[in-house]
Amino acid sequence: MIRRNYIFAPGPVSVPPQVLAATAKPIIHHRSADFDPLFQKVSEGLKYVFQTTNPVVIFASSGTGAMEAAIVSSASPGDRVLSLEAGKFGERWGEIAQAFGLNVQRRACEWGKAVDPNVVAEELKQHPETKAVYLELCETSTATLENVKAVAEVTRNTETLLIVDAVSGLAADELRMDEWGVDLVGAGSQKAMMLPPGLGFVAVSAKAREAIKKSTTPKFYFSLEKALKELEKNTTPFTPAVSLLFGLEVALDMIREEGIENIWKRHARLAEASRRAVRAMNLELYSKNPANTCTAVLAPEGIEGGKIVKALKAKGITIAGGQGPLKGKIFRFATLGWYNDYDVLTIIAAIEEVLAELGHKFQPGAGVNAAMEYLRQNP
Amino acid sequence: MIRRNYIFAPGPVSVPPQVLAATAKPIIHHRSADFDPLFQKVSEGLKYVFQTTNPVVIFASSGTGAMEAAIVSSASPGDRVLSLEAGKFGERWGEIAQAFGLNVQRRACEWGKAVDPNVVAEELKQHPETKAVYLELCETSTATLENVKAVAEVTRNTETLLIVDAVSGLAADELRMDEWGVDLVGAGSQKAMMLPPGLGFVAVSAKAREAIKKSTTPKFYFSLEKALKELEKNTTPFTPAVSLLFGLEVALDMIREEGIENIWKRHARLAEASRRAVRAMNLELYSKNPANTCTAVLAPEGIEGGKIVKALKAKGITIAGGQGPLKGKIFRFATLGWYNDYDVLTIIAAIEEVLAELGHKFQPGAGVNAAMEYLRQNP
Repeated sequence: MIRRNYIFAPGPVSVPPQVLAATAKPIIHHRSADFDPLFQKVSEGLKYVFQTTNPVVIFASSGTGAMEAAIVSSASPGDRVLSLEAGKFGERWGEIAQAFGLNVQRRACEWGKAVDPNVVAEELKQHPETKAVYLELCETSTATLENVKAVAEVTRNTETLLIVDAVSGLAADELRMDEWGVDLVGAGSQKAMMLPPGLGFVAVSAKAREAIKKSTTPKFYFSLEKALKELEKNTTPFTPAVSLLFGLEVALDMIREEGIENIWKRHARLAEASRRAVRAMNLELYSKNPANTCTAVLAPEGIEGGKIVKALKAKGITIAGGQGPLKGKIFRFATLGWYNDYDVLTIIAAIEEVLAELGHKFQPGAGVNAAMEYLRQNP
Repeated sequence: MIRRNYIFAPGPVSVPPQVLAATAKPIIHHRSADFDPLFQKVSEGLKYVFQTTNPVVIFASSGTGAMEAAIVSSASPGDRVLSLEAGKFGERWGEIAQAFGLNVQRRACEWGKAVDPNVVAEELKQHPETKAVYLELCETSTATLENVKAVAEVTRNTETLLIVDAVSGLAADELRMDEWGVDLVGAGSQKAMMLPPGLGFVAVSAKAREAIKKSTTPKFYFSLEKALKELEKNTTPFTPAVSLLFGLEVALDMIREEGIENIWKRHARLAEASRRAVRAMNLELYSKNPANTCTAVLAPEGIEGGKIVKALKAKGITIAGGQGPLKGKIFRFATLGWYNDYDVLTIIAAIEEVLAELGHKFQPGAGVNAAMEYLRQNP
């Protein structure tokens, strides 16, 4: 078979060729009139993806930079904040808040389960001074969907901000920022936005904006206050990553054409087909509340998870292993962003091949058939 | 005439098509073996550009992010630092240091002149506890070359670090980091590195590395300590801007092929030709110690500088105006990065056209002829 490379990791994702081509356009000067229509278009277009009428700031950074911006711009040293940590990425927000001297309550939650909104309600009752709650949309390390809507119901009529890390979840798992009442949402470019890595996004509610005015945490590059002020003038405080914005323009056109709700449905359908395939291959899902962003699978007894990742890699197929305590215990694959039914068949077929080679017992073809059947019956 | 767009601003610069094409390559996973040779190659290649054997960290950020990393990673709140500010970009480093609570001595120096190294010697004599000195390589807002070598002679045998902003100057103006004894050098991708914006670089001396270990300034994304630790494992703490690294690989090949000293000479030659053309057009240079990065020209009496910028823009040619107190008083053009003799003729010819339209008195063709003559006599 002619070797081709496939990326089925939960980010970075395959970038559509028309987006790649746009990123190679000749550079324009970001402090000239050439830049204005591009920046206005992508800034407006992003609002649709976040389902908000509020401004969305764009940083030249990874998704982590976007989350740092959300944290350092919305609180002051010593402020009590609640970090809900049910995986590797949830832990990162606690680490950032600690690095900047916030009084962060790092609540370790059970991995692979959604956080109980009552935990938040209880905390806010006892500590109404809590400045912000940090939550994932999708906890990528466990492929688990959090219940952002339910937590937002707890925070929305309080002084407390809800800050959501949607780095991997944006445009894959449902997120209605304004309708649900989320205050700050951070994301990155290399996931369902279908771009190369290098852009960080932060959407900012009116409530968050008020908090930002009062924040005294030291910051410069990641100051949302500065970025919002410049955004009003249709520009950025520092040099933007122009070529990635060319790509963003094309990706946003694709998103608008398909429709964000259709995109969520597509991800849900491809993820459900993947989950059915997993079970049909005699495997177990790791998460009790799986996200549509990616699928985490328990490695079968006697087979180290990393071996599955490595064997797929030898075929040119990139997926991800487990992180932290899940290292070797799970493997994770995504159908995230620019993916369709045939991509599901590709990754499931490849997993079948590898599992057979590694001696896992299952009916050959069962995975592919289960996925196909579900996709056929749920067009 | 068929309209084409030309960028002669002091960054962003024209990106060679082979570099643009490389940035459009299909994405690879930064946490897979596919990434290892690329990252190793570009990390090594950058050392040559900085003329150092020390590590060079790559951030997904603009050049300002790189400078923030250098500042917040090398000092602690309350530390005395000296910021030498002879222009808009020099002022930025003082602003960053202030934002992070350093005891920053913001020394306003005369714009358009190089800072006197004796100022630094005097300061260090009176305040040997000075943690770091911040200096530009090229102050882009005034097109002035600083005397980094002379200032490094003052700092190199002390405990004080010399931190240089080479965002616009790197690979244009001579810089020998190790030989001169510079401790931290920050730069960006969109200048003489011939790339789109979106990468920040920081080169770190052994002396700086010791200081980094002791720094308690709050930081996360821009922690050099974290980045250096990961760099030793040939990786990055957070998702790198992979597509720009593909471009960097090609740009570094081009730099290596031409040779860094030849590149400095090329910039010096094109800048000198530009300066001679300026004088031949009956105009005056703004800077008393002009850099080779770009050329700043005093707008002729009665003609607002912005009008010259605008008139060139109408022809598809982007240059830059003055910033801060120099707004309207100067205009700046660069032959920076991927530029040759014919580019000098293009920009000078266009300036001649515009000056004639705006009523400036000079001998038509004088600028182009002066540039051509110099280039011919200095091959």
